[in-house]
Amino acid sequence: MASSARGRLSVIQRHLTSHNAGSGHQEDTKSSNGIADNGRAQEEGHVREANTDGKGRNVAFVAASWRPTSGGDDDGEEAALKTLPKRRQELLKWNGWGYRDSKFTVHKEKDYYVAFTGNRYKIGNMVLPHFAQWVKDTLGVNFDDCTPPQEPPLPHQFPEPILQQDFMSELETLGIAHSLDGEDRLFRAHGHTLAEIFTLREGMFPRIPDLVVWPNNHSEVEKLVNMASRHCVVLIPFGGGTSVSGALLCPEEESRMIVSLDTSQMCRILWVDDKNLTARIESGIIGQDLERHLHARGYTAGHEPDSYEFSSLGGWVATRASGMKKNIYGNIEDLVVQVKAVTPKGTVERYTAGPRVSAGPDVQHFIMGSEGTLGVITEVTLKVRPLPVVQRYGSIVFPDFTRGVNCMREVALHRCQPASIRLMDNEQFKFGHALKPPTGFIGLVSEGIKKMYITRIRGFDVHTMCVATLLFEGSEYEVAAQEKRIYDIALNNGGIPAGEANGQRGYMLTFVIAYIRDLAFDYGIVAESFETSVPWDRVQALCHNVKHRITSECTERGIKHFFVTCRVTQTYDAGACVYFYFAFNYRGLSDPVHVYEEIEGNARNEILACGGSISHHHGIGKVRRQWMNQTISEPSLGALKAVKEYFDPDNIFANGNLL
Amino acid sequence: MASSARGRLSVIQRHLTSHNAGSGHQEDTKSSNGIADNGRAQEEGHVREANTDGKGRNVAFVAASWRPTSGGDDDGEEAALKTLPKRRQELLKWNGWGYRDSKFTVHKEKDYYVAFTGNRYKIGNMVLPHFAQWVKDTLGVNFDDCTPPQEPPLPHQFPEPILQQDFMSELETLGIAHSLDGEDRLFRAHGHTLAEIFTLREGMFPRIPDLVVWPNNHSEVEKLVNMASRHCVVLIPFGGGTSVSGALLCPEEESRMIVSLDTSQMCRILWVDDKNLTARIESGIIGQDLERHLHARGYTAGHEPDSYEFSSLGGWVATRASGMKKNIYGNIEDLVVQVKAVTPKGTVERYTAGPRVSAGPDVQHFIMGSEGTLGVITEVTLKVRPLPVVQRYGSIVFPDFTRGVNCMREVALHRCQPASIRLMDNEQFKFGHALKPPTGFIGLVSEGIKKMYITRIRGFDVHTMCVATLLFEGSEYEVAAQEKRIYDIALNNGGIPAGEANGQRGYMLTFVIAYIRDLAFDYGIVAESFETSVPWDRVQALCHNVKHRITSECTERGIKHFFVTCRVTQTYDAGACVYFYFAFNYRGLSDPVHVYEEIEGNARNEILACGGSISHHHGIGKVRRQWMNQTISEPSLGALKAVKEYFDPDNIFANGNLL
Repeated sequence: MASSARGRLSVIQRHLTSHNAGSGHQEDTKSSNGIADNGRAQEEGHVREANTDGKGRNVAFVAASWRPTSGGDDDGEEAALKTLPKRRQELLKWNGWGYRDSKFTVHKEKDYYVAFTGNRYKIGNMVLPHFAQWVKDTLGVNFDDCTPPQEPPLPHQFPEPILQQDFMSELETLGIAHSLDGEDRLFRAHGHTLAEIFTLREGMFPRIPDLVVWPNNHSEVEKLVNMASRHCVVLIPFGGGTSVSGALLCPEEESRMIVSLDTSQMCRILWVDDKNLTARIESGIIGQDLERHLHARGYTAGHEPDSYEFSSLGGWVATRASGMKKNIYGNIEDLVVQVKAVTPKGTVERYTAGPRVSAGPDVQHFIMGSEGTLGVITEVTLKVRPLPVVQRYGSIVFPDFTRGVNCMREVALHRCQPASIRLMDNEQFKFGHALKPPTGFIGLVSEGIKKMYITRIRGFDVHTMCVATLLFEGSEYEVAAQEKRIYDIALNNGGIPAGEANGQRGYMLTFVIAYIRDLAFDYGIVAESFETSVPWDRVQALCHNVKHRITSECTERGIKHFFVTCRVTQTYDAGACVYFYFAFNYRGLSDPVHVYEEIEGNARNEILACGGSISHHHGIGKVRRQWMNQTISEPSLGALKAVKEYFDPDNIFANGNLL
Repeated sequence: MASSARGRLSVIQRHLTSHNAGSGHQEDTKSSNGIADNGRAQEEGHVREANTDGKGRNVAFVAASWRPTSGGDDDGEEAALKTLPKRRQELLKWNGWGYRDSKFTVHKEKDYYVAFTGNRYKIGNMVLPHFAQWVKDTLGVNFDDCTPPQEPPLPHQFPEPILQQDFMSELETLGIAHSLDGEDRLFRAHGHTLAEIFTLREGMFPRIPDLVVWPNNHSEVEKLVNMASRHCVVLIPFGGGTSVSGALLCPEEESRMIVSLDTSQMCRILWVDDKNLTARIESGIIGQDLERHLHARGYTAGHEPDSYEFSSLGGWVATRASGMKKNIYGNIEDLVVQVKAVTPKGTVERYTAGPRVSAGPDVQHFIMGSEGTLGVITEVTLKVRPLPVVQRYGSIVFPDFTRGVNCMREVALHRCQPASIRLMDNEQFKFGHALKPPTGFIGLVSEGIKKMYITRIRGFDVHTMCVATLLFEGSEYEVAAQEKRIYDIALNNGGIPAGEANGQRGYMLTFVIAYIRDLAFDYGIVAESFETSVPWDRVQALCHNVKHRITSECTERGIKHFFVTCRVTQTYDAGACVYFYFAFNYRGLSDPVHVYEEIEGNARNEILACGGSISHHHGIGKVRRQWMNQTISEPSLGALKAVKEYFDPDNIFANGNLL
């Protein structure tokens, strides 16, 4: 029945080397075997084995197989199942994005050039011959003037922890893993907004968690929430730490003990149900681990937000995340069958695994998007899909952004979106070119011919043209049919197919681009991204107006060198998601973060004025709270407060997000 | 860009005659013309015309056209736009389902036979030569013993209304339409559960609304809710009145004045946005009117619950409705872009029309499924789609239910569901045959050949075989491709294509079957339907066990003649919706409704024990409240109560549903 095909890795795993993606899943596969789902039936107490009730019913159904993954401990073989160690500092940067061994570096030979280190990504250990020039031209960086700082060591001094002794004693008794170590606390004190990383580079947060705890499972989370309630201790759930909304920041004024509840040890796949194509998964699993384990069984969840390497399942649910392949797999709200969350009032869950239910307002939607303000998400039943047989990239060049948007809209109208379709504006198109690695002679010739065809013969202007990247998934037949349909629509809108390589590079850059900001900092550039969703008829006006607004704001502030670009990353029946990148050279400005925030604030006002939403998938956190009353009505806000008040009357989950 | 095609009517309109479906939309089309969407932009105050802000931005976007439909008054031409009059009794039965002119009747010539009256449905004015025999055989009805009652006149005596004089005075001042008429009140006192219709036929409800009000628009609803809050008056929103959950019943113990807030006059399409394929619609519009108006513009919302002829948009949202074509158009939660609802705390709405938003828990999900307990839904922005060019039926016969379910599961696995695919069990298959109209000679021969092929040549057993009905929508090419795919999967599962006519008949019967219960009552039969959703691996066990349980329950009670049948009506990635019909001959039982409720209660327990949900789309109302604590956890129930407490602290919306 299943059309799954093993033996291929997903889009992202292709971008990652075997060091990163390959080691864990072999043991995993070997150690697993089919066990009847009694465990599952017991766990979901109300679900009975329908063929065992002794009332003469003889319709059997085959129990779904399940294969628990190991988790919990960092010891021995099991550690291989988790990419990230408990001591995140061993693998991850403390003051920037991603892996310590992966970063952009600047070198000088005849002229300056940029390279990327490490072997985790396809551009790893590669020289990027065009990028330094792009940085000079676009952002006005004079490399000769700069002495980029050496990577500073981790701080040695941390804010003194506030400790609630009764809580600490009880914690010791229970034997739940925890740490008072400053590094551990610092690593869980922030996400990845510009402001947070700037703070890490330039100073210290006024308030960081006083303690980190690593519960092993739902039951330990229940104990922790209960203890926190009794001892008046604040809990801030921590998943992958990739938030870009200030959601993880400790409120400065909080005088109670703050405990970071790190879900990373709750990372087991509790069962995979082959009959219903669902999997029960602990919330702390990160995207790449989830996919690696599922791939080994021939499945994928297909949820790939840009943060997917590091962000967690619980985080996706808590922020209403969107994945780049949502056209096939859906956004997180489409993928979730069941959610289990521990609040101070007890555990929220829907017992039934029925695929769709009408039983009053859906309480699972109270949890999705709650951003850690109501409790801790512990387990999720997700839909999974058989791995596609074929995965193919593609790209289309358009003479201008308007025609690109028209094509996107037409594709959405016909609902023939492939797994992913994204449209980059001209600025991003050029930026992508600047990141190209060296091309050999044949490459040069072929690129030359392609360029000549596009610009000379077809008459495209390199200063207006833009590109769409495509990812197709399905059977060979399905993918071929999708390709034909998309390229036909593209041709009707003046587009020209531009090859698989450009498409694949585009998706690879999604993961690498996050590393650029750390390089930028070294040379006096701040950079950030933000997104919105908007009805189709306003996509172009919004893109234009927001870029125009940012330009005006920069000009007013005397900022000469800046870069603003956008892409349409998701398409829907009624509109699209638009994603902006914005960077500027802050030489001469005393408080670049504040200036950035002012400009982004005005850009956000412009977005709302153009009919865009406050956020498509990043969420609210603390940085977008001020626009909530322009998003939903006052009584709606009141309802969110009432739910918070009910679940958490003592404000134990006091991260201060949303409201 | 749009691939819409006019000149065809939807599946349901094909089943309805022109009397019913054709009269209104011509005026409607003629009177409309393209007007810039300023009205809309003003209405959604925050959305500005992006090309008019005078900041030098020159990206124009074409304003979406909108064409308001008339509504509000019953006078003159405008009345033609609404199928149902304000005085529902003029067109609808007072003690049964549907139109007064449409019903099953029993006649005697040589033998008894059943016919269907009126010309609204395809079996209208037709003799059904096989049905009387089926009723005799299956339900043990001896027509000779029965003297079916003449249709009784509407009651003349009604419970004395409780009137709150301050409320009444203020209502007069405001000039909002209202009625104290007993018939008007009775028509809004109930939905269509077995118990409610039985009560109508045998007696009177202990409590009915004291007053009916017909607000004209959102603003009048705001005034009414405000007045009700101030004067301590209960409001029960009334949409199409098709509830099968007891949701509309007035709580007996309610001592305050109860006002039925009838939304039927709020039935305008405020605008249709051709660019974004959305429409803003007042909540009181009923399904057939909505589709008629949209069709005239080349669109469809595609939401077709079985109650679609009479149920309202607001009711769909309030109950989390599902439509038979959800595979293309989605269920109501997939169709809704924005919801506006008036609660005692004020208006709940999300301002942005962005297609997908991450801004905390989605408050629109607080309203969807709220079943009139929080407020009145007044306006909805719905997705619309261009009308499909081709619509084609189909059917497949399977040797047994198991193979039919396997086929459904495989279709869902490959996600190649056509607009609708439904599987009827053997009992329902035979029941459908019993409802066949007379067949001419050629028909007889062709049926005979078909039957011979299926039973003699292919060896299908008429006592195990079952049938799936199919509805395909799309371009000619798409429909042909869908057909090939479905029939290939069917063949792999032992199925045989059985023609378009059988498929089309199956869907037509969906609307006619609701009329059978009234005939049944006349001959001592009670009948009802109920549904669930269930993971794929439990579909068969659930169907088997529930039917077995009902059989046992009937046997224990000495019920000799009963009929229980099921169909799989919706398919999802992780499971399906199963719909049961159950009828029994209650001769000799003193309280058939109570007996029915006991048996259905035990069937529901069986459903839950088999992993099914409390409801797929009918909702909770009052009749399924007792299972809510087996559906969601206690803290989840508490959250629903907290939301109710917040929006409606004085319990103005005291219909008593859900909790």
